[in-house]
Amino acid sequence: MGAAVVGAVREVDVGRFEADVDPEWTIVGKPNGGYLLAMLGRAAATASAQSDVAAASAHYLRSPDPGPVEIDTEVLRVGRTASQVRVRMAQAGRPCVEALVTTSTFDPDGAPYWDTGAPDPGTVGPGAGERLAPVSPDGRRVAIMDQVELRLDPECSGFRVGEPSGRGELRGWLALPDGMAFDSAGLLYAGDALPPATFEVESAGWVPTLELTVYVRALPAPGPVRVLQRAQLIDGQRVDEACTVWDVTGRLVAQATQLAAIRLG
Amino acid sequence: MGAAVVGAVREVDVGRFEADVDPEWTIVGKPNGGYLLAMLGRAAATASAQSDVAAASAHYLRSPDPGPVEIDTEVLRVGRTASQVRVRMAQAGRPCVEALVTTSTFDPDGAPYWDTGAPDPGTVGPGAGERLAPVSPDGRRVAIMDQVELRLDPECSGFRVGEPSGRGELRGWLALPDGMAFDSAGLLYAGDALPPATFEVESAGWVPTLELTVYVRALPAPGPVRVLQRAQLIDGQRVDEACTVWDVTGRLVAQATQLAAIRLG
Repeated sequence: MGAAVVGAVREVDVGRFEADVDPEWTIVGKPNGGYLLAMLGRAAATASAQSDVAAASAHYLRSPDPGPVEIDTEVLRVGRTASQVRVRMAQAGRPCVEALVTTSTFDPDGAPYWDTGAPDPGTVGPGAGERLAPVSPDGRRVAIMDQVELRLDPECSGFRVGEPSGRGELRGWLALPDGMAFDSAGLLYAGDALPPATFEVESAGWVPTLELTVYVRALPAPGPVRVLQRAQLIDGQRVDEACTVWDVTGRLVAQATQLAAIRLG
Repeated sequence: MGAAVVGAVREVDVGRFEADVDPEWTIVGKPNGGYLLAMLGRAAATASAQSDVAAASAHYLRSPDPGPVEIDTEVLRVGRTASQVRVRMAQAGRPCVEALVTTSTFDPDGAPYWDTGAPDPGTVGPGAGERLAPVSPDGRRVAIMDQVELRLDPECSGFRVGEPSGRGELRGWLALPDGMAFDSAGLLYAGDALPPATFEVESAGWVPTLELTVYVRALPAPGPVRVLQRAQLIDGQRVDEACTVWDVTGRLVAQATQLAAIRLG
């Protein structure tokens, strides 16, 4: 507790890390996939010539239990402006998550050159609206929601009162505990922080992430981030979710996409 | 030449493959990133217990030259319905692309359970409209466009006459040469087959892919596929592009996202 960053890791040897999967950063006892990717991204950036994560892609083999994990990195290429690192998480010798990470260094004075426009302002501002309770629609404990502060736009969180919109879209504001700031590795968590957007389609129990890719586009201004998460298709018991993250000034700071398993169809 | 599939590979030992990067599947002499990922996905699916690619994520280290490449696979986990494989491409011993692949087997009788709706019909049907010429906006040879048949919707291909729409969006129909069919590995190519959507913003020379993730959602019906490619943000000399692929019946068959380098901003 009291860690200054999401998904802290400790370097124990060159390129080797340890971390603790916190039992409080879990959903029905399983650690959040983005939280695990934050650990992997942090290890990769530490092992690399650049200090930030620009792109991270993880494939999930099996969920670790809360407790200690080992993280091994292998630098694949060292570049002047970007490097690539392979990184894997194991628990008691069993591989759990493997990821590829491209690291880079962000220019703190950079600015967007072109974009398709600011996000829809939504109906609630940061800090407004009701905080999501640490309970799943089927009544089980979502401990992580006691850690982070997630406030969903009521227009797209009808699932909370058993009335999903059918649109498969969630929007809200996310803040880390104890004033913890989002750094580039922390944004890997933000890309998977919302409940499944399928809650706004139909309740379906656990929706485990199979693959998660996050692009960090800029370092966010201090404060909460705004998150939009959308599902497009449920087919063959799998669903995609695309997630966009803006900082409190409205700057686009991260984009994520995931493929998850779902017990529908 | 005459290969029945996009990105053919030859198994030379258990889990080891060879392939030839075709000089005709290039853009200004550089092989297309999705074409390379098709080779990696094909090797992974051959090495795995399941025969299709469900999700593939590649980080690009350096572009191979046209000619022979070696592909090594390592199965990370074997599951009943899905397995994970790490796969890397090297040329003369130098690593070029590394990818993680989740394999699975698609149900040929499956059907979508829920989706957010059919694609915008666009202004041209399959086979209609002008075929994209094998030349870049700055006049260099794009050999791959002599292989595949890409017909862009004129509403979003103003770049061809020096009048980009400014929307950063391309739409069109893609067909493989010689009646070659899209299988799951072939769809990895489809996810990166269109020119950069930034051509509809501003011409910027080579836009090399840094990371490419593709989700295959279903096996397509025979025939060309419809592709929509959209950029959202150019910031820090990088651009994202999201790509959606539908088969000729309108079924969503693949989703791709990529982060690329761009000399703008």
